[in-house]
Amino acid sequence: MYYDNLTLLTDLYELTMMQGYFKSGAKEKVVFDLFYRKNPSGSAYAICCGLDQAIDYIKNLHFTEADLDYLKSTGFFQDDFLDYLKNFRFSGDICAIPEGTIVFPKEPLLKVKAPIIEAQLVETALLNIINHQSLIATKAARVVHEAGGGVMEFGLRRAQGPDAGIYGARAAVIAGCVGTSNVLAGQMFDIPVKGTHAHSWIMSFKTELEAFRTYAKYYPDNCLLLVDTYDTLQGVGHAIQVFKEMREAGVKSKLYGIRLDSGDLAYLTKKARVMLDEAGFPDAVISASSDLDEYLINSLMNQGAKITSWGVGTNLITSKDCPSFGGVYKLAGIIHEDGTVEPKIKADLIALNDEVFSEDDPMILFDPVATWKRTYLPAGSYTIRELLIPVFKDGECVYESPKVMEIRAYCDKEKDTLWDESKRLVNPQEVYVDLSQKLWDLKNALLDGVHNFKDK
Amino acid sequence: MYYDNLTLLTDLYELTMMQGYFKSGAKEKVVFDLFYRKNPSGSAYAICCGLDQAIDYIKNLHFTEADLDYLKSTGFFQDDFLDYLKNFRFSGDICAIPEGTIVFPKEPLLKVKAPIIEAQLVETALLNIINHQSLIATKAARVVHEAGGGVMEFGLRRAQGPDAGIYGARAAVIAGCVGTSNVLAGQMFDIPVKGTHAHSWIMSFKTELEAFRTYAKYYPDNCLLLVDTYDTLQGVGHAIQVFKEMREAGVKSKLYGIRLDSGDLAYLTKKARVMLDEAGFPDAVISASSDLDEYLINSLMNQGAKITSWGVGTNLITSKDCPSFGGVYKLAGIIHEDGTVEPKIKADLIALNDEVFSEDDPMILFDPVATWKRTYLPAGSYTIRELLIPVFKDGECVYESPKVMEIRAYCDKEKDTLWDESKRLVNPQEVYVDLSQKLWDLKNALLDGVHNFKDK
Repeated sequence: MYYDNLTLLTDLYELTMMQGYFKSGAKEKVVFDLFYRKNPSGSAYAICCGLDQAIDYIKNLHFTEADLDYLKSTGFFQDDFLDYLKNFRFSGDICAIPEGTIVFPKEPLLKVKAPIIEAQLVETALLNIINHQSLIATKAARVVHEAGGGVMEFGLRRAQGPDAGIYGARAAVIAGCVGTSNVLAGQMFDIPVKGTHAHSWIMSFKTELEAFRTYAKYYPDNCLLLVDTYDTLQGVGHAIQVFKEMREAGVKSKLYGIRLDSGDLAYLTKKARVMLDEAGFPDAVISASSDLDEYLINSLMNQGAKITSWGVGTNLITSKDCPSFGGVYKLAGIIHEDGTVEPKIKADLIALNDEVFSEDDPMILFDPVATWKRTYLPAGSYTIRELLIPVFKDGECVYESPKVMEIRAYCDKEKDTLWDESKRLVNPQEVYVDLSQKLWDLKNALLDGVHNFKDK
Repeated sequence: MYYDNLTLLTDLYELTMMQGYFKSGAKEKVVFDLFYRKNPSGSAYAICCGLDQAIDYIKNLHFTEADLDYLKSTGFFQDDFLDYLKNFRFSGDICAIPEGTIVFPKEPLLKVKAPIIEAQLVETALLNIINHQSLIATKAARVVHEAGGGVMEFGLRRAQGPDAGIYGARAAVIAGCVGTSNVLAGQMFDIPVKGTHAHSWIMSFKTELEAFRTYAKYYPDNCLLLVDTYDTLQGVGHAIQVFKEMREAGVKSKLYGIRLDSGDLAYLTKKARVMLDEAGFPDAVISASSDLDEYLINSLMNQGAKITSWGVGTNLITSKDCPSFGGVYKLAGIIHEDGTVEPKIKADLIALNDEVFSEDDPMILFDPVATWKRTYLPAGSYTIRELLIPVFKDGECVYESPKVMEIRAYCDKEKDTLWDESKRLVNPQEVYVDLSQKLWDLKNALLDGVHNFKDK
């Protein structure tokens, strides 16, 4: 069931192309850009995520004997190429935008500069890893923004397989969730794990009250009682009875309250809040779950629902309304053996590495579609930040990923750089990403070249 | 990045409940049913999938020293319970519906009978595994049905993490895909892998023609040329030129043709078919990809698009229109130490194990909602099949999973048992799943009991 190496986590065509490059003696270095074209879920931004796993993947790239035997058995590959793969290692350069950064369409999130045979192999796995985690981070940021905090990731049972649960929980915490129910993710990434009990706990006792009492006895400091197994408001009453018994016994709880997993959450939480407050438990937490997403949370907030803690499952861990992130990996240029760079275009953005900007110069930004829309930024009125940082240099990793909770703190600051208008649910304000004049000119020249080529 | 054991792939609350059962000395055996309430994607059926991975998970259940250290560090668990976990193994019984079987809402796909402390732990991972693979198998069956075959799974780069790509490919092949681009899935499950080259191959050569010639030289027997890098119909012309050169050189290809990944697939494939036929290549394959799903395939078929092979990516591997399968795991009954069974209900179905039916008796089926709708089946007019087969007995695995391609063949036969009216895209005919009279009576008695309980 398990695998300890993702080298074969690739589309077959990467390997058949590699053999083609090997056989034809292609030695050029190339530049590939990983970017995406459209934000998911109607968002005006995305959060890039997954770099640490992408780094692990690159570090561990190697073909085992079993891998080579398998490849031979497919009939596609010849011995000289398989011999070459025996000592295959990634020898190129990679730079990338750090995890937790707010990103926009067409920005390169990651750039690979390597011999074409190496750069080709890594396409599929890099896309898989970064697409997945960026998708879930972006969704989680939207959910957390609407809730204003206090969101727990609870989706493991509905995630698309174990990794989707594990790395999805990682991405969700980076984007602002306060913790996850997923214990393995907690262990792997040192992130908070949360949870109390399920309906089956209640059902395994003769009465709800006995179930609550037993739970409170063993977990006085993490005592969130699930009140909706039989009848929610009756359950709230039973929970209050247990909290009173704890108070009478002199038990001081660090965290106590109720959880609702069904029903009309607006109505029930308001009723429950009144009952808890009147019984003298104003600090009791009210936690809610039940098919929540950013829209339902927004609606509950607008209705004045009294929810202090949100358990969000399926809709977050699958990014239900938009379950894929459209990252692509495109050849941006070929570096010939004499060092000259030949830019390449299929239909999209290419990037220039050799332009230098200074904050001491004024800058004119222009919309790459409606090119007459221009913004003049006077000298000193803006800041420039290099987004791409070196991650691999000549095949050696030169970057150490921060811990997940550090990335989370960085991501929090990143989110603060966005205007509220770009974070709202309906028609969020787009953030403009502009091309420099030089890049714009080159893009047009390349497109002209392609169109001329067609006429040949 | 990797993990070799999924024991901690569980929600924290399973472990806190386990400690609660341990501390309170709960020794009862219980029965949990894993079932789902609604077919995904508007389908009238689902295909259950994932049992082999669920079996691996159960077999490997154990807490390592590192796991126990981690659990201790969370502060939730006490030493006596952690000591108990040291020697934890699953000791119960599991029966399940074999993978590849057509299933319907409310049927138990898997049934766990075990001490409550063991049955509780396995909830989350069993749901994660079976929900994911059943989701993708169901989606793939829909796509394959519309295409009439020839569907390749190409979605790894957009899958929700590595496992989603790997086990998603497995599920897709079980449900009828002819292969996958995912090499690691090919290696792990011995399923066919497919693919040729990408746009980057074309772009790395001076001209498209040179790129095609080079590919044809190395892969004469797997020569699908991607024709849409610059201009699709010009690309078809270049491909035909290369096929003619192969013919003139006396090269007999096992598999050759073109692939389109963009543009108006109906228009372009019809044009391409004419061009290929007129050039004397009627057996050239036309393969298409580009955001395909069952609806777009249906539309292309209706338009007479000339596509013989379909590469389906994002929409299949994420089940884009419905990215989660709503499997749940519910306490169905408690087996007391004296052997008596106490059935339990929250709001749903429970199952009876002790009913015996014979095909020699007539049977009356009735709709569990509209109970006046009844169907009389005379003796001998129907067949009975036990869907649940033993998988674990007293903690020992008593079942060996068939190979994936064997499950695929079984699934093919299963699909033949469905009427076409239940497989169509729009308003498919629901397949009725009935309760036996005895089960219906018990369900109502339990519901009455719950309602009485509320009045207490």
